[in-house]
Amino acid sequence: MVRKSAPSSYEQIKQSPFFKIGLHATAFAAGVWFIQSPLMDVLALLAAERAQGQFDPNKMHIFLEETAAKSRLFKRLVQSFDRDAVLSTSGKYYDLTKEQQREDTATRIARLAQYIEIEDEQSWQTRNSLLSVLDPQTGTRIGVNLGLFLGCIRGNGTFEQLKYWSNQREIGTLKGAYGCFGMTELAHGSNVAGLETTATFDKETDEFIINTPHIGATKWWIGGAAHSASHCSVYARLIVDGKDYGVKTFVVPLRDADHNVMPGVTVGDIGAKMGRDGIDNGWIQFSSVRIPRFFMLQKFCKVSRGGAVDLPPLEQLAYSALLGGRVSMVMDSFRWTARFATIALRFAIGRRQFKSASQGDGTETQLLNYPLHQRRLIPFLAQAYVFSAGSWKLEHTIKKTLDDLDAAVAAGDMGKVMKSVTEMKSLFIDSAALKSTSTWLTADAIDQCRQACGGLGYSSYNGFGKGYADWVVQCTWEGDNSILAMSVGKPLIRSAVEVLKDGKKQKGAVAFLNDAKQWANDKLVFNSAEELLDPQNTLKAIQVLMTRVALNGAEVLKENNGNFDAVGAPSLVLSKLHAHYYHLNEFYRRIEANEHKELNSHLVLLGKLHAASFVVEKFGGDFLGNNIVPPAVLNEVVNKKIPELCKQIRPNVVAYTDSFMYSDTFINAPIARYDGNIYENYFDTVKKSNPPENTKAPYSAAFEAFLGRSSLDVRDGGDKSAATAALLSK
Amino acid sequence: MVRKSAPSSYEQIKQSPFFKIGLHATAFAAGVWFIQSPLMDVLALLAAERAQGQFDPNKMHIFLEETAAKSRLFKRLVQSFDRDAVLSTSGKYYDLTKEQQREDTATRIARLAQYIEIEDEQSWQTRNSLLSVLDPQTGTRIGVNLGLFLGCIRGNGTFEQLKYWSNQREIGTLKGAYGCFGMTELAHGSNVAGLETTATFDKETDEFIINTPHIGATKWWIGGAAHSASHCSVYARLIVDGKDYGVKTFVVPLRDADHNVMPGVTVGDIGAKMGRDGIDNGWIQFSSVRIPRFFMLQKFCKVSRGGAVDLPPLEQLAYSALLGGRVSMVMDSFRWTARFATIALRFAIGRRQFKSASQGDGTETQLLNYPLHQRRLIPFLAQAYVFSAGSWKLEHTIKKTLDDLDAAVAAGDMGKVMKSVTEMKSLFIDSAALKSTSTWLTADAIDQCRQACGGLGYSSYNGFGKGYADWVVQCTWEGDNSILAMSVGKPLIRSAVEVLKDGKKQKGAVAFLNDAKQWANDKLVFNSAEELLDPQNTLKAIQVLMTRVALNGAEVLKENNGNFDAVGAPSLVLSKLHAHYYHLNEFYRRIEANEHKELNSHLVLLGKLHAASFVVEKFGGDFLGNNIVPPAVLNEVVNKKIPELCKQIRPNVVAYTDSFMYSDTFINAPIARYDGNIYENYFDTVKKSNPPENTKAPYSAAFEAFLGRSSLDVRDGGDKSAATAALLSK
Repeated sequence: MVRKSAPSSYEQIKQSPFFKIGLHATAFAAGVWFIQSPLMDVLALLAAERAQGQFDPNKMHIFLEETAAKSRLFKRLVQSFDRDAVLSTSGKYYDLTKEQQREDTATRIARLAQYIEIEDEQSWQTRNSLLSVLDPQTGTRIGVNLGLFLGCIRGNGTFEQLKYWSNQREIGTLKGAYGCFGMTELAHGSNVAGLETTATFDKETDEFIINTPHIGATKWWIGGAAHSASHCSVYARLIVDGKDYGVKTFVVPLRDADHNVMPGVTVGDIGAKMGRDGIDNGWIQFSSVRIPRFFMLQKFCKVSRGGAVDLPPLEQLAYSALLGGRVSMVMDSFRWTARFATIALRFAIGRRQFKSASQGDGTETQLLNYPLHQRRLIPFLAQAYVFSAGSWKLEHTIKKTLDDLDAAVAAGDMGKVMKSVTEMKSLFIDSAALKSTSTWLTADAIDQCRQACGGLGYSSYNGFGKGYADWVVQCTWEGDNSILAMSVGKPLIRSAVEVLKDGKKQKGAVAFLNDAKQWANDKLVFNSAEELLDPQNTLKAIQVLMTRVALNGAEVLKENNGNFDAVGAPSLVLSKLHAHYYHLNEFYRRIEANEHKELNSHLVLLGKLHAASFVVEKFGGDFLGNNIVPPAVLNEVVNKKIPELCKQIRPNVVAYTDSFMYSDTFINAPIARYDGNIYENYFDTVKKSNPPENTKAPYSAAFEAFLGRSSLDVRDGGDKSAATAALLSK
Repeated sequence: MVRKSAPSSYEQIKQSPFFKIGLHATAFAAGVWFIQSPLMDVLALLAAERAQGQFDPNKMHIFLEETAAKSRLFKRLVQSFDRDAVLSTSGKYYDLTKEQQREDTATRIARLAQYIEIEDEQSWQTRNSLLSVLDPQTGTRIGVNLGLFLGCIRGNGTFEQLKYWSNQREIGTLKGAYGCFGMTELAHGSNVAGLETTATFDKETDEFIINTPHIGATKWWIGGAAHSASHCSVYARLIVDGKDYGVKTFVVPLRDADHNVMPGVTVGDIGAKMGRDGIDNGWIQFSSVRIPRFFMLQKFCKVSRGGAVDLPPLEQLAYSALLGGRVSMVMDSFRWTARFATIALRFAIGRRQFKSASQGDGTETQLLNYPLHQRRLIPFLAQAYVFSAGSWKLEHTIKKTLDDLDAAVAAGDMGKVMKSVTEMKSLFIDSAALKSTSTWLTADAIDQCRQACGGLGYSSYNGFGKGYADWVVQCTWEGDNSILAMSVGKPLIRSAVEVLKDGKKQKGAVAFLNDAKQWANDKLVFNSAEELLDPQNTLKAIQVLMTRVALNGAEVLKENNGNFDAVGAPSLVLSKLHAHYYHLNEFYRRIEANEHKELNSHLVLLGKLHAASFVVEKFGGDFLGNNIVPPAVLNEVVNKKIPELCKQIRPNVVAYTDSFMYSDTFINAPIARYDGNIYENYFDTVKKSNPPENTKAPYSAAFEAFLGRSSLDVRDGGDKSAATAALLSK
């Protein structure tokens, strides 16, 4: 992780003792033929570009991690993961079968259980954020317990209930018992209010009877249910005296202290998944399972001994359990984009292919010196940087919002409670837009970065395959992206109408619509690309565009008698633009406030490229269709500004990617290690995982047998021979 | 596969004896609780929609497969796969480890070897096309032998050489020996001319010496090399008397008749991949391996006994070996889009979620009745249909082009040869545009269809995970999509300039540019959405747009001193538009020629939706920026036409998807079987693969041990206790 001082040009590097020793040592190990290789320059290439970096990656890291203290913590924890023999990863990570992955994650959790006992909260949280990059499936397998099970109790239970399950039962330190989160059912994922598991109050015994009425109500996808969990926070319909009070939450024991499944509980393994096979997702059916009344989580809803149901008005806040997950997925989007952009960019520096017109020295051209390759990859570098800003802001916002709400509820201050409710609504919009947009863009980033590495991107050992498969569930879980995006469009369109029709003042996430009147026309907004990409103008352009899209949406809505199903397309656009606005606005704000001013010009370039690629180019039809800019400006952004920005960023690509401060363990892709020795590192990894002495497959005898089979005539036993034909036709 | 006659409404279905028997039988098997399930209507839903279909899927299948004879062949082979215990697939297919997959594909090849001995060419080809859907990795593992190894010999070798390896050595019937295709190297994928393996002629012994000079020249990704192949068609630089004649092809034995690796040959397994783990891709290093002179493939290039090298002018045609693969990937794109669209659409019919405003009966709404869900999925149905037309056309074109060329070369008719060369250039452009665009769009289709199935799309058993991972290599191999797309842009931009500057007449794929003068302005082309989506107008709009993009590209090129690296972005657009034009043009032509006229209105809807979604909406910025239509028209297409077309197609979705005539074996996704019984089928598959009696994991003891660990104080041995503190601080 430490940045070595290095000579400043490619020629110097080739002459340096480091290079020669490297050459010698490798040649010795690999055989004399290696000396002939023209590929040895890969080491020099990366080192030379590193030496040319125009800013200090350590300072840039502080910007990315927000504070010097957090940057230090990050580095300390990266080192801790690197050195921990159980927690670190290598090429072998990509060779594990599903069964081995399951055991592997369990072993890692046992190790992490030792850290949680001794680390402070911030360290543990940062450790988890890093774990989601290094080994996301272990992260999730812990997350269902600490994040979702305990998060559900925090959100829905009383403080005493939280204390009991988290502290007294020691679940909070990965000890004693293990929780899972029983929300989704086989027939209900997104529509939580439609869940069908029942919790019927039995007045006689003072118990709830938890029951799965039919196959569709089988709890499905429950992480940890198959083998790990002893307890489940079950979402079930509260039924008292035959009346259905809607979905509430209950803690239901699944396994006893001997880890045997409880009577009345049927659990199963849902088996193979696209990714994250290390998590034992399961299904659960309850057959009239009885739990004590006080296993119901009762911060908002209470059932008395006599069956009286108390439902306070703030009950909708109980659904906040999933918000924390959404917020951390935005942070994951930053960290994952950073990792995969680093892999593809480092490879693109070391890899040469074809000779371009501009390359005069007889060598082939580095991939990253092709303008098309620059525009394929450098925008993802920009994306990672821009996402970092929004991620931190969102994290602060959720913490403040939940703390404020808890304090207001505890103080019984209804004024403050209602203020919190407004903040919560705003957070719902922001987090829905940010979660869906950021996870989609990250999925795309991983896939595009893989393609940019050609065949070597398809090899498991370079991380993309498992990375993509592990990642994309983020677009589905804890709120399907399309449904979340729809949920953003709705209040935006509605608010736009309110402003325009009634002049109603908007607050929070939709406050920008207060200017709607001014923009409810088709006046041209910007008439030059330079102007458009100026930070403040970009933000304004997005807001005007959103206003106009929302107002067009309102028109479509009217034509469809107010049926929001009809405005799916504009809702999606609004949600995505809202997320970009949030990220970019905070990114530019952070630059303004940055104490290391010398970094700012380098940061602004990234902001402009992000805006040009992911906003202006991607929504080009919307920009033109809503007359934000004329065609010539779009054309200039696409054909001139983007290539120019890429070219300006190009010399510092190594510095920008080094600034993420990921160690080789975190990168876990031999084509992209810090030393840049792409071919040797990759070849070594492949050989380590697949020893070349095994030239015959275990099933080789069967393969050889069919190749060496006798002729068809012989195998037909002569039945179809001329002789037989003569005989049978007599 | 046979379409049952069925009652015509949902209510009738629920009353039908079939439904009641089904209900009774399942209730008996599953326990009484099932009777309560409101999910039983899934069977009825699909059946009712099937009954309402407004056209005959059997006739539609003839359109999709081009002729009645090919439709019959398709159905016969589907049945043959379904019934063959070795070749058919099930949920277990998704549970195999890499090692099991390797053995599985070998077993299947042994079975297929029996079919190849008795089937005619067309049956065998269709079998392979179907295999690429049912079990793509087995398809590829055979394809590297029959398609690439023998294809290389067909393309580069003499007829006698082909006869020897294919017939005398019986490789053509999967017997005796097994070939692999040794083109790519660790450091060279796309740039074939830059390969570094050498084939040095040794005049004394009349042999070539095949050598791998350094690690970067290691043959890499070679399918079949790790364990299967006995021979390899090696791309290596021909060196005679110290002179480098560029890359030629040579057959090099890798293993002897006992399947032992030859001396001088080092092979290894490249190990785990993102997908297609059933293929034993390997690496090969040659250390001065000697082969007889006549193992060089010498259709175009000959080396005499004395070392004289004969290089005829048509040598560039030797690179046609990969063309066949590109063409079949376009057909694969049709078949794969069809399969995954069917899965997501059938699920969207059976699945209900939320109650929409329009749903009055108290049940939840079928996903496919949401307008947003329609526009997420129905365009992929259109894509499959439109792709079918272009795929068949391209297949005929390559056959004709290669046959014409062979005949011309055999006859020594240089006039015809040059005509063939022109046709071949056109085929290069068409196949590059179609391969890249179609495989990209199919990757997107698989992923979007998966997301539309929510969590159940992430379960391996519904096929998306392996499907996506297996598919996306198509975007990389046999020509990286971005590089192929660039190669399309170049001749288009160049030709546009020739037409405009010199009035030069263009032929083949670029002939449409002959009208360039007429369109080299910014006159508006169409002023209504209705007009734009008229088939012939859509085609014209695409051509005008391509002309203008090419001319803009020419401007950028001029500003960059003719450096084609600078026009990557317009090249990509041109390549994609070219592919859409090709597919749509042929699709509309086939409709014109269709003998079952009653299908045509249903087909035109799909063509319009494809054009509206994948051309007009996706390239909205280009349509507006080049003034093909005004903003209001784009807005109308996006917000009105697309929803309208979806709505018109919606009632026949089951008929459209049934028309692909895939059996449940080919669909291999329990949420999308023909009977529509999504939940039961899926649950059964999960339980079969993961018996629920295994409630404890094999590693459970270790898991329980860490949960039950003693307290930190105890484990610290009391070192940190107050007593110790008192003692140690004395």
